[in-house]
Amino acid sequence: MLTESQRERIQVILVSPRNPLNIGAVARAMANFGFTRMRVVAPYEPHWREARSAVGAPQLLIDAQETASLPEAIRDCLLVLGTGTLTHRKPEQPVVRLDQLAPLMTEPLRRGERVALIFGPEKHGLTREDLSYCHILVEIPTDPRQPSMNLGQAAAVCFYELAARIQVDSVGLEPPQDAEEPAPTSSNLDVLANLIEEVMTSTNYSPKTMQAANRHDLRLMLRRLHLNAADTRRALGFFRRILWRLKRGRHT
Amino acid sequence: MLTESQRERIQVILVSPRNPLNIGAVARAMANFGFTRMRVVAPYEPHWREARSAVGAPQLLIDAQETASLPEAIRDCLLVLGTGTLTHRKPEQPVVRLDQLAPLMTEPLRRGERVALIFGPEKHGLTREDLSYCHILVEIPTDPRQPSMNLGQAAAVCFYELAARIQVDSVGLEPPQDAEEPAPTSSNLDVLANLIEEVMTSTNYSPKTMQAANRHDLRLMLRRLHLNAADTRRALGFFRRILWRLKRGRHT
Repeated sequence: MLTESQRERIQVILVSPRNPLNIGAVARAMANFGFTRMRVVAPYEPHWREARSAVGAPQLLIDAQETASLPEAIRDCLLVLGTGTLTHRKPEQPVVRLDQLAPLMTEPLRRGERVALIFGPEKHGLTREDLSYCHILVEIPTDPRQPSMNLGQAAAVCFYELAARIQVDSVGLEPPQDAEEPAPTSSNLDVLANLIEEVMTSTNYSPKTMQAANRHDLRLMLRRLHLNAADTRRALGFFRRILWRLKRGRHT
Repeated sequence: MLTESQRERIQVILVSPRNPLNIGAVARAMANFGFTRMRVVAPYEPHWREARSAVGAPQLLIDAQETASLPEAIRDCLLVLGTGTLTHRKPEQPVVRLDQLAPLMTEPLRRGERVALIFGPEKHGLTREDLSYCHILVEIPTDPRQPSMNLGQAAAVCFYELAARIQVDSVGLEPPQDAEEPAPTSSNLDVLANLIEEVMTSTNYSPKTMQAANRHDLRLMLRRLHLNAADTRRALGFFRRILWRLKRGRHT
């Protein structure tokens, strides 16, 4: 079972939820399994207000943070998990079945890292763009004849699995002496991606028609590589240097 | 993972559900995880009609059977599981946490037995009377500060756990040569309980003021004993004989 402080490090993120009943249902399921941190990306304002002002709305819903974009919502997270059933789309990231997820979360939580668990909008789920910010896609093993779950029910199933099945050794809670470098936050990876993109453009590596596709592939690649924080710092320094040389070159 | 025919042997039972949205949510979660058999005990008729006639109601909801009582709904089941959070009540049966339930269901399903999974009404859950028909109480491990789950979400969590975690060896599906006697059905146990009660009354063992309490304790005891079908047949024969002697004695 997870301790309270470990549960607090699991950041639940709803991307553009529409139905106020679903928002309330996700919040209720969080409370049922002891999770407290909710962020909501670009909600439809009238429904968001309605969900938060509903009678009996849990405190965690009233305290939920609102952000304009997904990268902002996951800025401080080191492991980013997207959810979905993915039956109609070929995934670009590693896919892990929910019932096999717990062992992958033990180490990050033991190291005290923040983990994001993202749920997409009711109608179509997370977009390809949203998913490109994720390290892992978590698939709930549903029946292929009826794969699409209600948002509140899908969230309840995920919270149950995490609360009941992650075993974090509380003895080993202090970082061990020979700890690996921690992973970079999602926003550090975004800074790096933007910088590399600027280099691509400056060098004309990336013609205008290819920019969106290259940006997408780059974001995926940076997450697939599992750079640690030191790698990311080094890469940032290196690409800043390249960019500076490129710009200086152009002006002399 | 369970095969289709194993899923068909899991009988989902809703006792007096009130909210048509919840009935629909349970049915949808069943379809998501491949379960098809629903029975509903004494539903509130207008809401039951509304749930079944809703746009997009899954076929399993349209096919659901309606019964007047819980014993009737579980008549052909050999293992009966009640669900709940049970925080306010001292349970009279063995309690198993949902995440530890799967191993207990392997054998019954391998033997081809029918298993009932019962959900109570939204407001107060299963009554003490309802629970006295259950062999095991299944508890979803929720946070003690917010233990009570929404019906549709609780059902989704249970179906997910059963679908993802029960491992029934499909090689050993034929009953082994040295198979144990199968368990009695719930309705066989009820026939036996009624007969024993009749004996209690006939012998003045059970005065009128104690009849309800004795009936309750007897039902619990018969389930706790794990009688097999042959035991039950023998006990039926024995108590029928006792009753016949008692009645004959009285009339001579």
